[in-house]
Amino acid sequence: MPHTVKALITPGPKAPFAAGTIDRREPGPADVVIAIEYSGVCHSDIHTARAEWGETIYPLVPGHEIAGTVTAVGSAVQKHALGDRVGVGCYVDSCGACQYCLAGQEQHCDKGAVFTYNSRDYQGDPTLGGYSAEIVVGQDYVLKIPDALDLAHAAPLLCAGITLYAPLKEWGAGPGVRVGIVGMGGLGHMGVKLASALGAEVTVLSRTLAKQADGLQFGAQAYRATSDPKTFTELALSFDLLISTVSATGEIDTLLGLLGTNGTLVFVGMPPGPQSVSISPLTTRRRKIAGSLIGGIALTQEMLDFCAAHGVAPEIELITADQVDATYDRVVAGDVRYRAVIDAHSI
Amino acid sequence: MPHTVKALITPGPKAPFAAGTIDRREPGPADVVIAIEYSGVCHSDIHTARAEWGETIYPLVPGHEIAGTVTAVGSAVQKHALGDRVGVGCYVDSCGACQYCLAGQEQHCDKGAVFTYNSRDYQGDPTLGGYSAEIVVGQDYVLKIPDALDLAHAAPLLCAGITLYAPLKEWGAGPGVRVGIVGMGGLGHMGVKLASALGAEVTVLSRTLAKQADGLQFGAQAYRATSDPKTFTELALSFDLLISTVSATGEIDTLLGLLGTNGTLVFVGMPPGPQSVSISPLTTRRRKIAGSLIGGIALTQEMLDFCAAHGVAPEIELITADQVDATYDRVVAGDVRYRAVIDAHSI
Repeated sequence: MPHTVKALITPGPKAPFAAGTIDRREPGPADVVIAIEYSGVCHSDIHTARAEWGETIYPLVPGHEIAGTVTAVGSAVQKHALGDRVGVGCYVDSCGACQYCLAGQEQHCDKGAVFTYNSRDYQGDPTLGGYSAEIVVGQDYVLKIPDALDLAHAAPLLCAGITLYAPLKEWGAGPGVRVGIVGMGGLGHMGVKLASALGAEVTVLSRTLAKQADGLQFGAQAYRATSDPKTFTELALSFDLLISTVSATGEIDTLLGLLGTNGTLVFVGMPPGPQSVSISPLTTRRRKIAGSLIGGIALTQEMLDFCAAHGVAPEIELITADQVDATYDRVVAGDVRYRAVIDAHSI
Repeated sequence: MPHTVKALITPGPKAPFAAGTIDRREPGPADVVIAIEYSGVCHSDIHTARAEWGETIYPLVPGHEIAGTVTAVGSAVQKHALGDRVGVGCYVDSCGACQYCLAGQEQHCDKGAVFTYNSRDYQGDPTLGGYSAEIVVGQDYVLKIPDALDLAHAAPLLCAGITLYAPLKEWGAGPGVRVGIVGMGGLGHMGVKLASALGAEVTVLSRTLAKQADGLQFGAQAYRATSDPKTFTELALSFDLLISTVSATGEIDTLLGLLGTNGTLVFVGMPPGPQSVSISPLTTRRRKIAGSLIGGIALTQEMLDFCAAHGVAPEIELITADQVDATYDRVVAGDVRYRAVIDAHSI
């Protein structure tokens, strides 16, 4: 039978979070019960809590950057065991049989992946996320967190980490490849660390130089302000891969001008509304504009193992449950360096 | 010393073509002299002759879809011999040493490829194209036309053919791949024939159904009108690859909605001015927008051999030199089915 666990809940788009309880399902044979220890605060949580991305199912418990410890497993569970350090990312189920699931792109499941919160599971029940003390997840959607990764630092990897790792791998970031990371927030700073660990030549393109020292410390070779027009003339044709992590995209044509022939501009954020794009910069230099959305389970595990092997971890600010509302405002203001993580023991 | 050959020349953007003469260079040791027999009329010729794409070097001799016969070779020429049936496409020289030349993307040469007309060779002399009786080209930029291809039909392959073949190959057109060709003009009809010969499932997306019978005969399985809104609802998520051959692009977001997850929209034309594009259709389904510009020499030869092996040839209207001005107007009106080719014997 379901059991009751503590959670941070918001009842509507303008309401603050309040401590309360939610029901988690009785674990089935393939389920893993996870005591949540840390839960990252993603900008998506804020958009959803504030109903800025269409309809939100309230009461809402956000959180899809979950790290914790296995406290129980179903009879058929073979992948995880009691006491294992594990993580859960942006989705908790998919059909497992469609071309995308079979290709390791479960996030694009034809049936529709079940997202970790503000989604409905295949029984029709709303999903509730990681701002809670416990979660029950099918074993195939539970990641192993290597011993070398601290649980609090591992949490943001489950969304921010894979969001950057997937396009960096897809578009060949590595030695000799000139990568520009647009934006130096929670996503961008992971991009710098990951691209650098992959051996790429990394430049940060941030609105100002305020975070320059951090960017260089995280592995960037160069740090340029997009508010300075000289950036775009001096760095014209200088990149093989640009990853835009920002919502306020600025001029896409201006970014395209930074790409060399065969270069790719990847969006991992979702700038709202229509953007202006000229086609001739694509045609004349065989450039591409692509989108990328988190990543599949196998790739997410690969990313966690890569981070453990290369000492890659996000910069975090550990917060307690009572700080979530204030932290949301700080995230929106770009004031968190670089990812807030809720200590779930405080929930 | 240079020798004088007959050509069709336009002296300015509003002037008709007139028969005249031009000088061709004395062939060097690596040069091939080609008696031009057929020269295709590409829409680019019109844009250039009318100075619609920036500055044009006048007097202008357009033409970069050239088929003819070798009449002389320099002492160092090993690739071609007297009497060979050969072709010349959109460029006649490149540095041969940069990363793009070495990668078989000579059209993207770092030094700047020398285009067949309205360009300057590495000595600074303006290049003059295929609307002439003879051309002198370095052997590395001369293609072999297989015996199975009629010379008049081979000519348009040198630009229209490779323009479509390159993205079809790059983005995996083949059995089981759902390809949509947007536009049914000179480029589009080659796309239908090539994609079909590659084994893809081909749908034409044309403004109206006027050319439906032709499209189906060229190998398309389906033919849909973009003027009918039902096309976009009924074919949503139905394509792996869309190739847009049109300049009046319409709504790019509408085209993106036709692509499934991981799908690619490739532009081979250059719609003028900025277009409106939403980013979320890229991100949520991992779609891409790409550009493609003709193709490298090796790929162009592969395309010619492929066309010979698979019986692929453009539909042409053979015209004489005195019909070029009128034909330009007919091309702009979309009235030519599907490529005009100048019989160069008439020049």
